[in-house]
This record gives sequence, structure tokens and C-alpha cells, in this order.
Amino acid sequence: MTDPAAVVDAFIAAIERRDMAAAVVHLADDVEYDNVPMGKTVGADAVAAALGPFIERCTVVDWPVHRQVADGPIVFNERLDRFQLGDHWIEMPVTGVWEVHDGRITLWRDYFDLATYTSQMAAATGG
Amino acid sequence: MTDPAAVVDAFIAAIERRDMAAAVVHLADDVEYDNVPMGKTVGADAVAAALGPFIERCTVVDWPVHRQVADGPIVFNERLDRFQLGDHWIEMPVTGVWEVHDGRITLWRDYFDLATYTSQMAAATGG
Repeated sequence: MTDPAAVVDAFIAAIERRDMAAAVVHLADDVEYDNVPMGKTVGADAVAAALGPFIERCTVVDWPVHRQVADGPIVFNERLDRFQLGDHWIEMPVTGVWEVHDGRITLWRDYFDLATYTSQMAAATGG
Repeated sequence: MTDPAAVVDAFIAAIERRDMAAAVVHLADDVEYDNVPMGKTVGADAVAAALGPFIERCTVVDWPVHRQVADGPIVFNERLDRFQLGDHWIEMPVTGVWEVHDGRITLWRDYFDLATYTSQMAAATGG
């Protein structure tokens, strides 16, 4: 599978199944994962270590894509990333900028509002 | 001019010239301008009223586009929106989701981190 949009779709589908091992297959070894207001994680193993425990803690992960456009190696998508933690839902409006080369994701950069995340996480974890 | 990406480019070029009257020509009468973490402004006149005074206060407005992809009426772009206020530069990493129909922008939705903006504005205005 080398179509950039299809690779992004497959990665997101694996995340929604909370299957980090299946997701990481779609990442380049030196992938840059940039959560813009939080910082960057570099490398497929580091992304798995950062994201895997969180998605495994969730009972449901649901990332509906509202719009997606691709051109060459570049994919943009507008999503609502939803995570169920116990009785709480965390809902994050996000736009992702992706680059896919030779069938693997080399860049995954998400733009979102950090306080929208931290305030919902605090409510969900009682923090 | 009806090409969606060209319309977005022309709108941004007018904003960079700090010419709100030239920019507003590219907006549909019922445009939705959604600054995701702040809220929505509806209508070309309301957008001009909200944005015009701010860009006129700036000495320089510079919005370099790092990536832009279009498909049909949809345009995504990844930008660094830069505003000079007095001796201060405010720099905002932003992703925009646009829809253009019949040569006019019907949706302009920017995803960014609100605190990245408010903290720089406070420094620039001494607030």
C-alpha cells in the first residue's frame, strides 16, 4: 500500500482499534510526530511508546475524519479525535498535516488547542 | 477568479497588505469564519469588523504558507501567521480549512493553540 491517503486511513483505523503494533507498521523509522503546542516525538518506537499506553487506557478511540485532501505525498485531514476514559469522553478538534513517502508516514503534525485537551483530561482523571 | 486555491491566495495576499476592503471581496456574504478555540464569526461584514481593526493596528502582517493542498471546493493550508505590533512579533502556527464556492470563501476555519496567541499578545501589549 503506497497511496498516501490510504496509508493515513490505515494508520487511523489501527489507532481506533487501539492496536499500536498494527499502527506503527505505517510509520517510517524516523517519523516526526509533532503535537504542535506540546512538542515533537521522533522515531516510530518513540511514537509507539508515547501513544500506545494512552490508547490502551481508553475504552473507545474514535477519530471521525470530516474532510481529507491529498496531493502527492501530502495529506491534510480535519478530524474530531474522541477518546473514552471511564465514563468521560474527551473530544479534540484537530487538523493533521501528514507526509507519506514510499508507503510510510514520515510526518504527522497535529494542530489543536492544548487547553481544550488539558481541561477535559483533568475532568476525566479527577486531576 | 474561481479556482479555490487562487481565491484563498488572493484573500491572504490582501490580508498581508492590510487591505480589509480588498480581502472581503473574496468572502461569501454568509461566510463562516471559525477560530476553533475562540468561536465563530458569521458574515463578511462581521469578519471585516472583527479582523480589520487588528490588521490595521499591525505594522507588518506576513502569513507564509508552508503547505497547501486543494481538491474541489476544499483548500487546506499550513501557515505561520506573523503580526508585528510595535517592536513585537506575534507568530502563530495555524492550519486553515477553507471552502470556496463560485469564487468566494464560504468557510474559513483555523486550528491553533489559543494560549500561544494570548501569551504573545500579552507580551506585545504589556497586558
